[in-house]
Amino acid sequence: MWMVGGFAGKVLRVDLSRGETYVDGLNFSLVKSLIGCLGVASKIMLEEVDPDVDPLSPKNKLIYATGSLTGSTAPAANKSIVVSRSPLTGIWGESVFSANTGIELKRAGYDMLIVDGRAEKPVYLWISDGYVEIKDAGGFWGMDTFSACESIKRDLGEKRAAVVCIGPAGERFVRFASIISDNGRAAGRCGLGAVMGSKNLKAIAVKGSRNIEVANPDLLNEIRMEIIEITKESMKAFSDYGTSRGVVAFEEMGNLPVKNWTRGRFPGAEKISGIRMAETILAGRKACFACHIACGRYVKLSEGPYAPLEGYGPEYETVAALGSLCMNDNLEAIAKANDLCNRFGIDTISTGATIAFAMECYERGIISKEDTGGIELRWGDPEAIIRLIELIGRKEGFGAILSEGSMRAAEKIGRNAERYAMHVKGLEIPMHSPYRFKEMGLQYAVSERGACHLRGLSMLPARGILLPDLGFNRKLDGFTIEGKAHLVKVMQDVCRVVDSLGACKFVYLFGGVPLRRLADLYSAVTGWETELKDLLRAGERIWMLQRIFNVRMGVRRRDDTLPKRFLEEPMGDGAARGHVVELEPMLREYYAERGLDEEGRPRREKILEMGLDFATKYIDW
Amino acid sequence: MWMVGGFAGKVLRVDLSRGETYVDGLNFSLVKSLIGCLGVASKIMLEEVDPDVDPLSPKNKLIYATGSLTGSTAPAANKSIVVSRSPLTGIWGESVFSANTGIELKRAGYDMLIVDGRAEKPVYLWISDGYVEIKDAGGFWGMDTFSACESIKRDLGEKRAAVVCIGPAGERFVRFASIISDNGRAAGRCGLGAVMGSKNLKAIAVKGSRNIEVANPDLLNEIRMEIIEITKESMKAFSDYGTSRGVVAFEEMGNLPVKNWTRGRFPGAEKISGIRMAETILAGRKACFACHIACGRYVKLSEGPYAPLEGYGPEYETVAALGSLCMNDNLEAIAKANDLCNRFGIDTISTGATIAFAMECYERGIISKEDTGGIELRWGDPEAIIRLIELIGRKEGFGAILSEGSMRAAEKIGRNAERYAMHVKGLEIPMHSPYRFKEMGLQYAVSERGACHLRGLSMLPARGILLPDLGFNRKLDGFTIEGKAHLVKVMQDVCRVVDSLGACKFVYLFGGVPLRRLADLYSAVTGWETELKDLLRAGERIWMLQRIFNVRMGVRRRDDTLPKRFLEEPMGDGAARGHVVELEPMLREYYAERGLDEEGRPRREKILEMGLDFATKYIDW
Repeated sequence: MWMVGGFAGKVLRVDLSRGETYVDGLNFSLVKSLIGCLGVASKIMLEEVDPDVDPLSPKNKLIYATGSLTGSTAPAANKSIVVSRSPLTGIWGESVFSANTGIELKRAGYDMLIVDGRAEKPVYLWISDGYVEIKDAGGFWGMDTFSACESIKRDLGEKRAAVVCIGPAGERFVRFASIISDNGRAAGRCGLGAVMGSKNLKAIAVKGSRNIEVANPDLLNEIRMEIIEITKESMKAFSDYGTSRGVVAFEEMGNLPVKNWTRGRFPGAEKISGIRMAETILAGRKACFACHIACGRYVKLSEGPYAPLEGYGPEYETVAALGSLCMNDNLEAIAKANDLCNRFGIDTISTGATIAFAMECYERGIISKEDTGGIELRWGDPEAIIRLIELIGRKEGFGAILSEGSMRAAEKIGRNAERYAMHVKGLEIPMHSPYRFKEMGLQYAVSERGACHLRGLSMLPARGILLPDLGFNRKLDGFTIEGKAHLVKVMQDVCRVVDSLGACKFVYLFGGVPLRRLADLYSAVTGWETELKDLLRAGERIWMLQRIFNVRMGVRRRDDTLPKRFLEEPMGDGAARGHVVELEPMLREYYAERGLDEEGRPRREKILEMGLDFATKYIDW
Repeated sequence: MWMVGGFAGKVLRVDLSRGETYVDGLNFSLVKSLIGCLGVASKIMLEEVDPDVDPLSPKNKLIYATGSLTGSTAPAANKSIVVSRSPLTGIWGESVFSANTGIELKRAGYDMLIVDGRAEKPVYLWISDGYVEIKDAGGFWGMDTFSACESIKRDLGEKRAAVVCIGPAGERFVRFASIISDNGRAAGRCGLGAVMGSKNLKAIAVKGSRNIEVANPDLLNEIRMEIIEITKESMKAFSDYGTSRGVVAFEEMGNLPVKNWTRGRFPGAEKISGIRMAETILAGRKACFACHIACGRYVKLSEGPYAPLEGYGPEYETVAALGSLCMNDNLEAIAKANDLCNRFGIDTISTGATIAFAMECYERGIISKEDTGGIELRWGDPEAIIRLIELIGRKEGFGAILSEGSMRAAEKIGRNAERYAMHVKGLEIPMHSPYRFKEMGLQYAVSERGACHLRGLSMLPARGILLPDLGFNRKLDGFTIEGKAHLVKVMQDVCRVVDSLGACKFVYLFGGVPLRRLADLYSAVTGWETELKDLLRAGERIWMLQRIFNVRMGVRRRDDTLPKRFLEEPMGDGAARGHVVELEPMLREYYAERGLDEEGRPRREKILEMGLDFATKYIDW
């Protein structure tokens, strides 16, 4: 019998206030019940971060965890999971991305890194196998993310190290600051870059030299070949055109957000699509570790107002947020805006959504050039978008107000501006329309981290992407609300599973991979015989722990809602014309599915039934 | 900063009843407070083995732990620690030995192995890095230890695997059955081989492929060279003549046990000494892993009644137990008896002491040839000794009674025989005279596992082996009782430290190594800056946890005593002539030193003061 492959077995703790680092063993009993470090991190956050801990205080924790399959040769299982209390939402903050740092961390012998406290001056962490050093980052402070990553590697003399870092935005506590990896990926959402900034932590650099052991390499390889075989065809559009492959189709089906969610039609859709990108500015494709799809884009502008530019290209969410949502159909400007967001280290979704909010306020006369410092915020003006990104990234002028995120910016602006701030619990709405897919409306309302598309992807069955292993073996109707509570619940659980395993949702949920193969992969890597139903039960447990965390932070039924626009203003045009989101009945059903009481609080008996006895310590209802 | 070198970070659990194996993370917080796995094992035994668990029941646990320095290049740090509830004493059972299995276990990624349950049929464990298998041992059952180790390696096709196993005695639950390693070392005391037998576990085979990381290799190497430099001179007698180097001197000073502790003079001392061994049967020296001393003996008999014999030679304890204690001055017979004990897998100390007890009973007419099955048990008769060893090893005839140990054998024999059974709490007295070194009397009375010389070695300062770092910087008088309670307490604590680190007591306590270098070694390996006083405090904690375990098992003041002979019968001849052990006043002082109440139970406030809050759960006094 092979024993627990895939894990390194140790947890590295760093207290920046004391300048101390500390190692602990991974509790494998807990890992087994929660299938990985995402669940363990959820328990640690519950235990160690109280509601009175401000997200930007030294007492907040930043957890950098690895997926259970991360670093194995399971296809596209390369994710890192960053967790903290979010400065943007004040609740569960989490972002999952494909940084090589996670793979190196596991190779260095750690499944998780927990950062506590605040360094007196800017520092970065250097982890090389057992060697851990808190190093001076004074020379890198103020640098943009890509320069900082490269400079730190040069400073260390370690080309093979993997680095994640924050840009000027994180240093200045922009509430939607991101963490950027040297392989061009962003932990964008929830402002975790600001948490790093509040800790005076510029970067984390890691190099490991061990192999990650796998329980059953032959079985792993067999499943790997099968998944590659299935997905190399089914995911071809991702390879060829990246994640923005579907902009035109989305516009046609009424899924693309336009003009701060007031419209469904966008004439410029074709001009910003992945197909157009491939025909114009695309210079290459970028694959994450152990991925055969390579949906990442690499773009190059040699002429025009945004040249020269060479670097990672925009994803679908970015294209929509900085494009159609702001009525911008200039792909080169979107590429430039994306590059700026990455260099400053700010989330492109929240950035685009906050700019769209500002544009609507400007159009409605709620703000004027006096407020914006002279910038005319006309819909679709690429110069205005780029100027605002620079101001947000530096937290200067009007950018300082927007850098608080749309919810807080609306409060500061006043004059009913909150009506146009499109967020749930402070997190800006991502780029899939809840008018078109009602399940996305429910999902946004109840997602663990505020409005999130990735913690559910519940529109898949209505888009004809079936998941028979979950019981979704026929195409659903996105416009109806029947059965959507169950759909959202199951899709959330499976997304918690995929995140926990460190796997890519595109490959595993879009590509037609039988989901039971996820369980087989997990069995092959860990050596623990596991079925899909076991994984899903663990996914439900993880969701529940995060819900308990959120309820402790004050989340109640009133917060499980959507911007009034979605509830009250029917969509004006396009395929979803005339629709609003009928949230209430879905929400009621959903609470019953989840075992929540009328206020949205997990019932004690449900917690016990799920085997989460320890968590009852943290409920006082 | 380097993080926790020396540890693998994982704990392997095997449930033989269910056929399941399981991995957990090492709790480094606990390790730090207890400086290693001996302390962690103590906590696990407290938590998981209740007083109602019979030592030979499937519910008893067998813990195979490694020392904190084990497997590093720290000189002579190569020990494995086996822990269980002892079938011989019913209390804390522990044995420390230099098996390579421990080093391989750590290289395979585990700091400890915890075995639970009972296999349905004979099995052995095969651990190769992450691969763990419970394998059929039917073909090896009944084999002697050396044959079994070799056969298992052949069966696995793994010459480089390290194996420990039990012999026929362990299989048959001889209460002082040992565990023998393929490098010829014995975990002799407390009958842990019978615990393996009760679990149907013939052997544990391990092979690991990882390097054991060390925090500061340069510092480690510097200390290593210093220790080698110091000890290569001071330990020369150990190299040349082995541990029985001092038989003649011991006899002269009154330390050698003779004729079941009734005498001090032994005319045959010279004939069984290490010097004589070197002149006659010695064929080579054997070093444990990373030891430059090589006190282990390898002997060869080519002629005479015990030829042919080639193998590991007897240690001092064996030479005395099977020699002077039984009035036997035939070195070749001792070598044969030692080889038989190892092959059957029985502890040479308990074996010799139980045979001496039987000889005294025979002399006194308490037993006769009818009881012994025709064997005349005349003092010093090598044939009788060898015959009894064979009967004990096979649990046949009179051997079946002796195989229960001297305490239980005396009960079965009755007729006041217990007066001549020389044990404390069931564990037979080792070979250093409490008449000559009163501190050894106290030490035997209060040692964690019953009469033990190695959990204290408190006679060192009276033998002129000074330990200035512990405050013992002048030669003490072994015949007095003043200050001996403090001496025993401190020496017990330092022995807990040395055991916990997996270091060799000979090299570190006999060789003149400044003891603060132990702390430096620990710091260099783990990366945790540690001073000697921190180590000693941890040593005290470990002792206390084991005391709590023992008190839960029923140990009280009445058990902290010595055989009446030592208390009441003055030594008849030799250097200690006229002496008895004045135990009571030493014991009273010792209880005060340790924070025990008048019944010998640890006081709650003492436990809390030591930072062992969790342990108060296990006290009901």
